[in-house]
Amino acid sequence: MLRTIEYRDGKVYIIDQTKLPTVNEIIAIETVEECFDAIKKLKVRGAPAIGIAAAYGVVLGIADLKEIDFDSFYKELKKVTEYLSSSRPTAVNLFWALNRMEKKALENKEKPVEEIKKILENEAISIQREDEEICRKIGENGAHVLKDGSTVLTHCNAGVLATSKYGTALAPIYFAKEKGWNIKVFADETRPLLQGARLTAFELNEASVDVTLITDNMAAMVMAKGWIDVVIVGCDRVAANGDVANKIGTYGVALLAKAHNIPFYIAGPTTTIDLNTATGEDIVIEERDREEIICGFGKQTAPSDVKVFNPAFDVTPHELIAGIITEKGIVRAPYDINLKKLFD
Amino acid sequence: MLRTIEYRDGKVYIIDQTKLPTVNEIIAIETVEECFDAIKKLKVRGAPAIGIAAAYGVVLGIADLKEIDFDSFYKELKKVTEYLSSSRPTAVNLFWALNRMEKKALENKEKPVEEIKKILENEAISIQREDEEICRKIGENGAHVLKDGSTVLTHCNAGVLATSKYGTALAPIYFAKEKGWNIKVFADETRPLLQGARLTAFELNEASVDVTLITDNMAAMVMAKGWIDVVIVGCDRVAANGDVANKIGTYGVALLAKAHNIPFYIAGPTTTIDLNTATGEDIVIEERDREEIICGFGKQTAPSDVKVFNPAFDVTPHELIAGIITEKGIVRAPYDINLKKLFD
Repeated sequence: MLRTIEYRDGKVYIIDQTKLPTVNEIIAIETVEECFDAIKKLKVRGAPAIGIAAAYGVVLGIADLKEIDFDSFYKELKKVTEYLSSSRPTAVNLFWALNRMEKKALENKEKPVEEIKKILENEAISIQREDEEICRKIGENGAHVLKDGSTVLTHCNAGVLATSKYGTALAPIYFAKEKGWNIKVFADETRPLLQGARLTAFELNEASVDVTLITDNMAAMVMAKGWIDVVIVGCDRVAANGDVANKIGTYGVALLAKAHNIPFYIAGPTTTIDLNTATGEDIVIEERDREEIICGFGKQTAPSDVKVFNPAFDVTPHELIAGIITEKGIVRAPYDINLKKLFD
Repeated sequence: MLRTIEYRDGKVYIIDQTKLPTVNEIIAIETVEECFDAIKKLKVRGAPAIGIAAAYGVVLGIADLKEIDFDSFYKELKKVTEYLSSSRPTAVNLFWALNRMEKKALENKEKPVEEIKKILENEAISIQREDEEICRKIGENGAHVLKDGSTVLTHCNAGVLATSKYGTALAPIYFAKEKGWNIKVFADETRPLLQGARLTAFELNEASVDVTLITDNMAAMVMAKGWIDVVIVGCDRVAANGDVANKIGTYGVALLAKAHNIPFYIAGPTTTIDLNTATGEDIVIEERDREEIICGFGKQTAPSDVKVFNPAFDVTPHELIAGIITEKGIVRAPYDINLKKLFD
């Protein structure tokens, strides 16, 4: 399996995702500035992977600090985290990981700075290991909706390349493959940014999973042919009632799955569940740049002055969801009751 | 309104559609070779427009023939039609138009060749005028499913640029606009070849129709927002039971429309209705080149060795269709009975 991000001998090795799918290049990140650059330029992307990269970025940023008293050290550490947090200002996992690193430092303020540095290095490693463990559990739990010979349709990329390992929506597929099952996948290309074509098709192909790439508007026909047993997609946020915000197009896939009696599953860590968001209607949907649609691939493919609507996400109502696959198990309806139970 | 194709002073003027949407250039076609080239290279496309262009191609091809006896003339005419028919060997309207020209010549074999040439020129003009009239009627009939202020969603391009004028799916919109109604349109970009972005968005924009471009996977969200009153798309073939083959993605749009209680209409001339095809299952779906998906925009966006499924069309079952808008009126269920009545 690909390694999206790896920490070795004081360096962070990442796959430069801006070069995928044509070039699979691993680059070494040795300074906090290089880490900032990698996050900002989407060389590393996907919420969990960004969090992990940022945590390692802190390790790189504090390695050569000369301060030996905690207060001076902490002041410099804050400079590093503030710098990294400006790399992608809307990435929630980025802040979460940086906060966790700061908190860990504060908890150990009585210890010598050199020891704190070691503790923070271990904390970053822990963040990565925990992500790996969560994704593996999602895979294990999600494999229960598959059987040997199943064909899965997925949308966007919620795979290895978005996490430390396994992914979320793709984790059950990798888990089933480890068990020796033969699983086929249809990947929607996922306009406008083509994460399905560039990333999902790439990583499944690399892992020798039988993957077929289609454009988004072919999903209905593929389902009508009886080729799809189950749909599994990732999620950006799960509301308390089970409504799910995910990459634009997910809602349409859910409706098509329902029309063909195909179970539609969401996969994600419990950290994606936001009990403070009552329903999908409370989720604000980001609208992105018109250029993504009118010249998404370098070449202009629509009139430059045409009106464009470019929402990054849509909301799938909980009624369309057969289950939410988490590291703690598969949550099923009634979601308002069963999602809460996860946190009891 | 744009003029896709125009015959004037012995020359054929077309919009070079390979340069759209960035350049709107009208080119003059003066020889049968130039006409062949224009069809082959998709400078002119869309079934009715190809037929019209081919008919004019015959006129150009026979203009300078020196033969004065019919048999010699007809032999040369056949060379011209055979040459033109090889420009796009799967285009049904191409053969239909060329056959019609040959038949017209045979019907008038007793007349002097110079007179036959004039008759054939008029026949080509008639083919174009009839197409215009049919499209205008489709517009008039289709306007009954709209009202002032309606918003239409469409897929692919069944507009002016595919016909002589008005189009089919877009004809009701142009007709409503002529009446002074305010109609809004959402256009699916229509992967893989982006006819929605390149052609529909372009021609509606040129005609000052309020058009918003979306990627195919945004249609569900736009419908959920309550923004769409009616869906109108074109058709490649209508089976005797009302099943419709049209551009890939149409079936998905029909399912999404049903899920949101939005009426879904097909528009096309009665020549598209094929009573010899019993149901949609009898329609063979062309699969196109993998390159359209893995490097559709000039830039490679998927692994070069990934498996691809690239059907050009899908079939929408008649149950999902609120009506088929033709030049003879709107046909509604039961289609097996009512489609037949059109030809009584």
